[in-house]
Amino acid sequence: MATITTPQVIPSPAEDADALLKAFQGWGTDEQAVIAVLAHRDAAQRKQIRVAYEQNYNENLIQRLQSELSGDLERAMYHWVLDPVERQAMMANAATKCIHEDYPVIVEIACANSCAELLAVKRAYHALYKCSLEEDVAARATGNLCSLLLALVGTYRYDGDEVNDALAKSEAKILYESVTNGETNHREIIRIVGTRSKAQLNATFGWFKEEHGTSIIKALQLGADPTGYSHALRTAVRCISDANKYFVKVLRNAMHKSGTDEDSLTRVIVMHAEKDLKGIKDAFHKRASVALEQAIDRDTSGDYKSFLMALLGGGI
Amino acid sequence: MATITTPQVIPSPAEDADALLKAFQGWGTDEQAVIAVLAHRDAAQRKQIRVAYEQNYNENLIQRLQSELSGDLERAMYHWVLDPVERQAMMANAATKCIHEDYPVIVEIACANSCAELLAVKRAYHALYKCSLEEDVAARATGNLCSLLLALVGTYRYDGDEVNDALAKSEAKILYESVTNGETNHREIIRIVGTRSKAQLNATFGWFKEEHGTSIIKALQLGADPTGYSHALRTAVRCISDANKYFVKVLRNAMHKSGTDEDSLTRVIVMHAEKDLKGIKDAFHKRASVALEQAIDRDTSGDYKSFLMALLGGGI
Repeated sequence: MATITTPQVIPSPAEDADALLKAFQGWGTDEQAVIAVLAHRDAAQRKQIRVAYEQNYNENLIQRLQSELSGDLERAMYHWVLDPVERQAMMANAATKCIHEDYPVIVEIACANSCAELLAVKRAYHALYKCSLEEDVAARATGNLCSLLLALVGTYRYDGDEVNDALAKSEAKILYESVTNGETNHREIIRIVGTRSKAQLNATFGWFKEEHGTSIIKALQLGADPTGYSHALRTAVRCISDANKYFVKVLRNAMHKSGTDEDSLTRVIVMHAEKDLKGIKDAFHKRASVALEQAIDRDTSGDYKSFLMALLGGGI
Repeated sequence: MATITTPQVIPSPAEDADALLKAFQGWGTDEQAVIAVLAHRDAAQRKQIRVAYEQNYNENLIQRLQSELSGDLERAMYHWVLDPVERQAMMANAATKCIHEDYPVIVEIACANSCAELLAVKRAYHALYKCSLEEDVAARATGNLCSLLLALVGTYRYDGDEVNDALAKSEAKILYESVTNGETNHREIIRIVGTRSKAQLNATFGWFKEEHGTSIIKALQLGADPTGYSHALRTAVRCISDANKYFVKVLRNAMHKSGTDEDSLTRVIVMHAEKDLKGIKDAFHKRASVALEQAIDRDTSGDYKSFLMALLGGGI
């Protein structure tokens, strides 16, 4: 469930565009006015505002926002105003350019989306970049990380609920042997995690835990490797097992004592605010014994904080 | 362009179903009557006939055809009556079960279809088998053959016409070095052939020939390997370079002096008769200096021959 709220009576796109123009004019930008409009409009409404703004003022709204805002608020607003599918294609593309560090973004897009949603992102990628996400991943990643990411973004996973229990049992055994073996059999791990349906994988992970008394995620931590592969694999397993729980982990890591990772915080809030942030918020509260709003309130400030709070359902 | 012909006035599905029932009744089956109906109906019409037959006679038409016909005609008619997309999904599934021999079917489906057509086949595969084509390929193939097939079926290739000439030149060099190197670098070959767009690959293959005076297909023949991988790779390159030319080769091999390979002959004719068999027929005539109809006339006989001839546009 989404967390954003929209007013009962939505102003026309032209009225919203006008309110934005007014917020840009004069000395300094009225950031609160910008947030009051854009944080409380859904994707279709934001698109209409972009179109109305361009038609009426002969100027690209996204570019104007980038020049009017700055810092974390600018980056967050930039991503928020984009179409949700294009936004993911753009985030995936940016991640391919620094793939040995930013691979978690690609894993999230591949594993936390449904297969129909992933396909939509891949189509948007074609339209924006005149090439496929697969070829950019294949050309820029190396080794096992490359094989894993390619399987994750390439496979058009079956998304039904049917589970083959015998297969789950036998593949849990293969995974266990592959993970605990001195010479880890990455090919088999990548094959199973990269191609089986999510329902099938969750049955396999369940068997793994039942048979071996430890979760596959913990078992995977045994084998360290210097490339991002092991981490990417654990990220994939986490996203497939329980995406909400995974995003709670990202949020908690982003608001760690050692400092705030605004990019990760923004990514989770912006990408999920009009999709499933309610579930992530509830899971966060349960896990951290503090509401997500409180944690964000403590860790951020200014207009950036106001914007995130608005996306979380506050202040209308 | 398709080769099948349909009558100017199409009988109703109920009339066609009735004609088929009459052809099945009495002593022996009237194969010519069956061919006269089904070989001259397009996919949508055949589907309506299947529905009408089942409704009116409470019997599955495909099963009845299988019990009434036999040999090569039965197998060809069985595939012909199916929905074209489901037919490919079923052929791909059958091929995964004997993947180290039947991989060419999978390569053809992955590379001779557009990316939208391949996606439709993968969707039909989900619906029919409650799993993905990718997981069946990954579970049943091994080694480089597996990596290649997975990239071919998994990648949602970009299908635009844009070509990056500098990339084509640099990847032609990578391919040449990978192929001619004693220790062939399969990973790079699979990456390029498996993920780049067809337009991009054709530019790369063009540069390869220009720079090295030999086609990549000929160069690939230098490195023999005991698994199907090398052959699968050449098949992929052929399908991507010029699918018509590739199917001409399949047809010529199927009608070789040493005997006829009816399965391959049927596959090409049935799969392309209502899609692009006209182009394949023209390319065959040019290459073999004999019309495809003449070659088939020489190599086949009986009702099977009549059926293929009808699919090629003969006798209405």
